[in-house]
Amino acid sequence: LKHTYGLIGSDGRLGAEVKSLFTENCWQLTLEVNKEFERLDSAPQVIIDCSLPEVFNKTMEFAEQYGSALVVATTGLSNENLEQLKLYAQKHPVVQSYNYSIGIQVLLKVIKEIKEITNGWDIEISETHHRFKKDRPSGTALMIKDELGLTDVNISSLRLGNVAGVHTVSFGGLGEVLSVTHEATSRRTFAEGIFKAAQFVINKKSGFYGFKEALFN
Amino acid sequence: LKHTYGLIGSDGRLGAEVKSLFTENCWQLTLEVNKEFERLDSAPQVIIDCSLPEVFNKTMEFAEQYGSALVVATTGLSNENLEQLKLYAQKHPVVQSYNYSIGIQVLLKVIKEIKEITNGWDIEISETHHRFKKDRPSGTALMIKDELGLTDVNISSLRLGNVAGVHTVSFGGLGEVLSVTHEATSRRTFAEGIFKAAQFVINKKSGFYGFKEALFN
Amino acid sequence: LKHTYGLIGSDGRLGAEVKSLFTENCWQLTLEVNKEFERLDSAPQVIIDCSLPEVFNKTMEFAEQYGSALVVATTGLSNENLEQLKLYAQKHPVVQSYNYSIGIQVLLKVIKEIKEITNGWDIEISETHHRFKKDRPSGTALMIKDELGLTDVNISSLRLGNVAGVHTVSFGGLGEVLSVTHEATSRRTFAEGIFKAAQFVINKKSGFYGFKEALFN
Amino acid sequence: LKHTYGLIGSDGRLGAEVKSLFTENCWQLTLEVNKEFERLDSAPQVIIDCSLPEVFNKTMEFAEQYGSALVVATTGLSNENLEQLKLYAQKHPVVQSYNYSIGIQVLLKVIKEIKEITNGWDIEISETHHRFKKDRPSGTALMIKDELGLTDVNISSLRLGNVAGVHTVSFGGLGEVLSVTHEATSRRTFAEGIFKAAQFVINKKSGFYGFKEALFN
Repeated sequence: LKHTYGLIGSDGRLGAEVKSLFTENCWQLTLEVNKEFERLDSAPQVIIDCSLPEVFNKTMEFAEQYGSALVVATTGLSNENLEQLKLYAQKHPVVQSYNYSIGIQVLLKVIKEIKEITNGWDIEISETHHRFKKDRPSGTALMIKDELGLTDVNISSLRLGNVAGVHTVSFGGLGEVLSVTHEATSRRTFAEGIFKAAQFVINKKSGFYGFKEALFN
Repeated sequence: LKHTYGLIGSDGRLGAEVKSLFTENCWQLTLEVNKEFERLDSAPQVIIDCSLPEVFNKTMEFAEQYGSALVVATTGLSNENLEQLKLYAQKHPVVQSYNYSIGIQVLLKVIKEIKEITNGWDIEISETHHRFKKDRPSGTALMIKDELGLTDVNISSLRLGNVAGVHTVSFGGLGEVLSVTHEATSRRTFAEGIFKAAQFVINKKSGFYGFKEALFN
Repeated sequence: LKHTYGLIGSDGRLGAEVKSLFTENCWQLTLEVNKEFERLDSAPQVIIDCSLPEVFNKTMEFAEQYGSALVVATTGLSNENLEQLKLYAQKHPVVQSYNYSIGIQVLLKVIKEIKEITNGWDIEISETHHRFKKDRPSGTALMIKDELGLTDVNISSLRLGNVAGVHTVSFGGLGEVLSVTHEATSRRTFAEGIFKAAQFVINKKSGFYGFKEALFN
Repeated sequence: LKHTYGLIGSDGRLGAEVKSLFTENCWQLTLEVNKEFERLDSAPQVIIDCSLPEVFNKTMEFAEQYGSALVVATTGLSNENLEQLKLYAQKHPVVQSYNYSIGIQVLLKVIKEIKEITNGWDIEISETHHRFKKDRPSGTALMIKDELGLTDVNISSLRLGNVAGVHTVSFGGLGEVLSVTHEATSRRTFAEGIFKAAQFVINKKSGFYGFKEALFN
């Protein structure tokens, strides 16, 4: 029996990747919402929201109507939206995250372990992005810093051409350097993360989860 | 109260590094053996062997006489030597390894975790060493392959100038690449690994341990 | 006064990039040919062909009619096609290449210089591409080998996820390593190369040029 | 017939490397000066000074006595010392530099060329050194900045373990990144540069040269 899913925002760049990946994996799309149309065949096991905060209410209406699990990838949710999700999560399973990249989650996990073992080594964070990026350091670099529990660490920010995003964390002891590097090459990675979250959430009864928990359960 | 240690082979390149590092950390050298002399002040808590298989018997004699813990860094031990060590380990704690590099152990640990999480991604191993290295791929690259449980994986071997040793393991998904790189810069790293092993072993009652267990206990 | 250009294949992926870049630089599109329509406002100074061998004859017809300069980026041209181009080049200026990446041309230029100066150092070539690439080593890696005049050089080929293309040439002496790395991040680079070729070719009277000559004239 | 050379400072770390390399290449050491002794067999073709400013006068005395060519690698020379050298260079050939690394010179040469060709691309300089290095950015990074004629360029400085020294210059266009990286692995590289300077200078009649001219003559 095929798994069924609904997709809110199937016409966006991420939504299109999600649709393509779930189809490859033989999941059946039984609810589809985009700017052009709404289509409903049957109640989906899980609803994926790759849309905008403006249509978040529609996502919640569908979820409540069918009691579906939820994977929410929308960015810029209000606190009110998050409260709504947590309320829903008391009876149904929900995964919510602003970043479904698998590699960044794996990087965060292993650098924490490396830091513990290499206690006393130097730590350097560096990130490279396209020239149009305005914030420096990147949000992910700051997330790395927080995850390592560091208040005083050097972060090098490079801006080059249209580089999608590279993050490196290096640990230097006297006699060796150990580095972990993540390089983004396309948005397909986010679709894969969402797929992992969907596989995780359909087997849960209820609860509000981050992507990290879905990935490393 | 200071920790006390004995050092077999204090005049070798590694032995000299060990002596310097233990001194920095205020450990007291109460037994010293090298090509020039033997000096004994008092029974050491732990004996470090950075010497050659030829003098292994001397190491064992001292150990048995004082009931010291052992950290053995000698390479090229015979099976008979190892049996002797295991016998001794029934009553005393022993750490034995052919490679006390902390970074390589950490690399081995995290790449196993990454492989599990990124199931289905491509894996590439590459190593760079000096032009005089005769074996290819390097022993460490083969150790990486074994640790990952891979029978069929591509290993790229580069030979450049007098590079001390670089190993990279890369994991490639559709949309991202995650890499872990270890670069050796000097033999100080091995002294640090031996120091960690000594710290570990003096708190044990008995048992035969590898460096990995000493590092991640 | 604006420069004018014609574009054959304006609806392809590369054609669309070319159109966008030339527009940014205020060149005027006076001839446009694609699968949907043909549009002609006036004779263009230069005609860019980003199309397929199948429509090469149309490109030549337009060129002969207006006496335009030519920049040909079509791959898979027949020897007959190339002869036609060379004939045309006796009276008009033509640039033809299968690869308009600026960075690769620059890499080829500097590695030759480095090789001459570092005579006797070790040389290693490595390349990383997506898992779907069937040939190994890559055509560009072979081009590097030829450019360096090497018959016996190690080429390491890595296949990871959907990496667009990375090439590294390393030179190792006793005491140092010098490396040059080119990484492709998008097809925009080819549009930029074509733009440089167009700027070059409109100032020539006649002649058959490669992209290298257009870039380094 | 063997080439002959003199060596001032044969007991220093660099001096020892120089002696070893020249011996490998069958040059004959006919004048040797160090802290322990002075030894003179015959007038050397070229005198290498790997010593300290304090003994610079002795170097000049030997040079004037035998009319030898000079390769001066001493750092911290006074303006007066340099004037003395330039005066001597009116009649004899002299090479003087504070850095005889071949790779850094080659890097400086090729990045200038790359900058000219990739006009408009982003430029990033980064350098990694051991944790004990106090100045940031490194002198070599500043030399790179000057050589590129840049007043406003981002330099990232990383401090990790006991890394000997890595410098990277990256050029980023829309669609590609081209990087040149130099990594020092031992002081042998400086001995090789001095050897190249000696080979150059013994064929000159007179003149004051930098290492760059000796390398790229």
